[in-house]
Amino acid sequence: MPGYSTNEWMKLIKTEPIDVEICDVTLRDGEQTPGVSFTKEEKMDIARTLDEIGVEIIEAGFPITSNGEKESVKAVCNMGLNAKISCLARAIKPDIDAVIDCGADMVGIFIGTSDLHLTYKHKKTQEEAIECMVTATEYAKKHGLIVRFAAEDSTRTGPDFLKRFYQAGEACGADYVNIADTVGIMTPSTMKYLVGEVRHMVNIPVCVHCHDDLGLAVANTMAAAEAGAKQLHTCVNGIGERAGNASLEEVLMGLKIHYGVDRYDTSLLKGLSEMVIKYSGIPVARNKAVVGQNAFAHESGIHIAALLENDRTYELFSPEIVGGNREFILGKHSGSKALCYMARQMGITLSKAETDIVLEEIKRMSESKRSLRREELAELITLLLSKESASTTQA
Amino acid sequence: MPGYSTNEWMKLIKTEPIDVEICDVTLRDGEQTPGVSFTKEEKMDIARTLDEIGVEIIEAGFPITSNGEKESVKAVCNMGLNAKISCLARAIKPDIDAVIDCGADMVGIFIGTSDLHLTYKHKKTQEEAIECMVTATEYAKKHGLIVRFAAEDSTRTGPDFLKRFYQAGEACGADYVNIADTVGIMTPSTMKYLVGEVRHMVNIPVCVHCHDDLGLAVANTMAAAEAGAKQLHTCVNGIGERAGNASLEEVLMGLKIHYGVDRYDTSLLKGLSEMVIKYSGIPVARNKAVVGQNAFAHESGIHIAALLENDRTYELFSPEIVGGNREFILGKHSGSKALCYMARQMGITLSKAETDIVLEEIKRMSESKRSLRREELAELITLLLSKESASTTQA
Repeated sequence: MPGYSTNEWMKLIKTEPIDVEICDVTLRDGEQTPGVSFTKEEKMDIARTLDEIGVEIIEAGFPITSNGEKESVKAVCNMGLNAKISCLARAIKPDIDAVIDCGADMVGIFIGTSDLHLTYKHKKTQEEAIECMVTATEYAKKHGLIVRFAAEDSTRTGPDFLKRFYQAGEACGADYVNIADTVGIMTPSTMKYLVGEVRHMVNIPVCVHCHDDLGLAVANTMAAAEAGAKQLHTCVNGIGERAGNASLEEVLMGLKIHYGVDRYDTSLLKGLSEMVIKYSGIPVARNKAVVGQNAFAHESGIHIAALLENDRTYELFSPEIVGGNREFILGKHSGSKALCYMARQMGITLSKAETDIVLEEIKRMSESKRSLRREELAELITLLLSKESASTTQA
Repeated sequence: MPGYSTNEWMKLIKTEPIDVEICDVTLRDGEQTPGVSFTKEEKMDIARTLDEIGVEIIEAGFPITSNGEKESVKAVCNMGLNAKISCLARAIKPDIDAVIDCGADMVGIFIGTSDLHLTYKHKKTQEEAIECMVTATEYAKKHGLIVRFAAEDSTRTGPDFLKRFYQAGEACGADYVNIADTVGIMTPSTMKYLVGEVRHMVNIPVCVHCHDDLGLAVANTMAAAEAGAKQLHTCVNGIGERAGNASLEEVLMGLKIHYGVDRYDTSLLKGLSEMVIKYSGIPVARNKAVVGQNAFAHESGIHIAALLENDRTYELFSPEIVGGNREFILGKHSGSKALCYMARQMGITLSKAETDIVLEEIKRMSESKRSLRREELAELITLLLSKESASTTQA
């Protein structure tokens, strides 16, 4: 049975119990990745898998963008999924009308709240921004939508305005307030502080939407959850604007291992990652956590020798848990245990002398940048040992 | 002048002042990435750039691995860099002799301390593990090496044994103790707790070596620094065993933006990243923070319009700070402001009607997965507007 190591240190630190829902925004922020555009059928495929995994909310798109987008979002809304379908809208009537027209359950209405965004983007005062948001929210609520009241660039907005902004949202009937770390400026410590503050400002649930400009999107999302945020935004493979958003697969595995949240079908994550790679045209790095090609690949002799005794020595969790595979590769850092194991798997038993010959050749090859995957090993062994037996016969 | 947004929330949370040094392990743990092998010249190129950036310690390799490795490490030791050169060694004499032979300044001596590692890898008791480490440390100290006393898999080791282990290290003259999050099980909260505990156990500086199996290596490294860890381990592009180590570029930019550590020449980061991509054969994801192709790429109309008013609206820091470039891409989510700006940059002024024609075509193209980079735009404009002017003339 595949397993994972538990984080025993979690028992020693004080945390509130975790109560979260995932709002995956791959089809919206993920699609805003420069160069990415999903067809209607692709959006439906991704949405179906997210639903099978058990993601609670799927943000299907930004319907005002184009007619094609509206058609795609409508199609996702009509799939009859368990997940609620959310859309993005600016705080203006045509955007909300487009969402209503699609038949979505939820809308994320947003306006930039930082001085930077108010001055350079909206050219509005703080009061004007609140007024737009309240009008748009009241309109959306009248049409039966669940409303996420979102401060874009919240994390560069002063606490006083943030308080007035979120309280205005609660007062006009919004269902959630949203903290957007639009340019990825937060750290886990500051995110915890901010979520704590926002939870004192309002009595409705808090959402977090984290960007990865300093590589902290997943950590900030988990820190927000520890501090009591309810709705966590993710993207498959961590795609999204610039450096992207918090990665769905890392957040779900973090929730499972650190906080015991076990209700998502994580065995579909690797397949979903591959689907999104194909549809987005954005490969993940080989060393990407959870779904990268190397996430369960091992070359070091020390590591492979230990893994052959017990998988958990050098793996936090079994690849099967995320639908992945373990792989041993032979190269510069490999040792005889790994070589003999891989040979045995192919029905070849190597003597000590044969092992030394093959290993020497593998290390020599690695100096010219070659490493061996399983399928290439049999060929090498046959080649080397037939040479060897020829020379022995001659001698 | 290129700039960046400061994290104002840092002022509101209590943190100790940060006092850190970087030990970059690209040439050692980075090289253990399955399939990666650096030549001597490549190791020297990478070491030279790390030194120019101002990294304090460069871990050049694991000399016992092979003769080729020993030659490479020796060459790095003889470069006369400002950085101290460190090597890895198991707690056995031949490994330490290989390090001494290379002329390194520092050695990281390690043994697995978790029950998992002791039982399945070393088949040693806790006392035997301590004994090996102490003997190896005394031997290394006698030969003038700075010693890092490292508990592999520290984060799955019980606090009681960890305390005895580290105290034995301090008592026998080790210069640092090392916390290795070997399988990436920690969170920022638990890492802070653990570093705090270890700082109470010993009076020598604490190192942290974090793996990225759940996408938290950078966050855990920064959390350790906040809790008073001195030496932070990184790899360029976050390469390393499995999902890799904390990324150098993300850690350095985090130190700069969050903690005001400004002494590293971050303008060399993009070039170093490209060098390591070439030498390792491991590309970074397009959406990799700091050095990915998309880190400063923008397609969304809303984002580009705001960026044209003020760069900071949708960028945490200027690409120049890390030696990168800003890029605008036209696609499904682009608007007229972005289009007109990019056209103007090429000396083309578009009328309102012309803008609409070109933008419509761009959105149509995006539905069949095409997006436009700058160089392709001129061609499209010429094509469309010549067609248009032909049809106007005919009408």
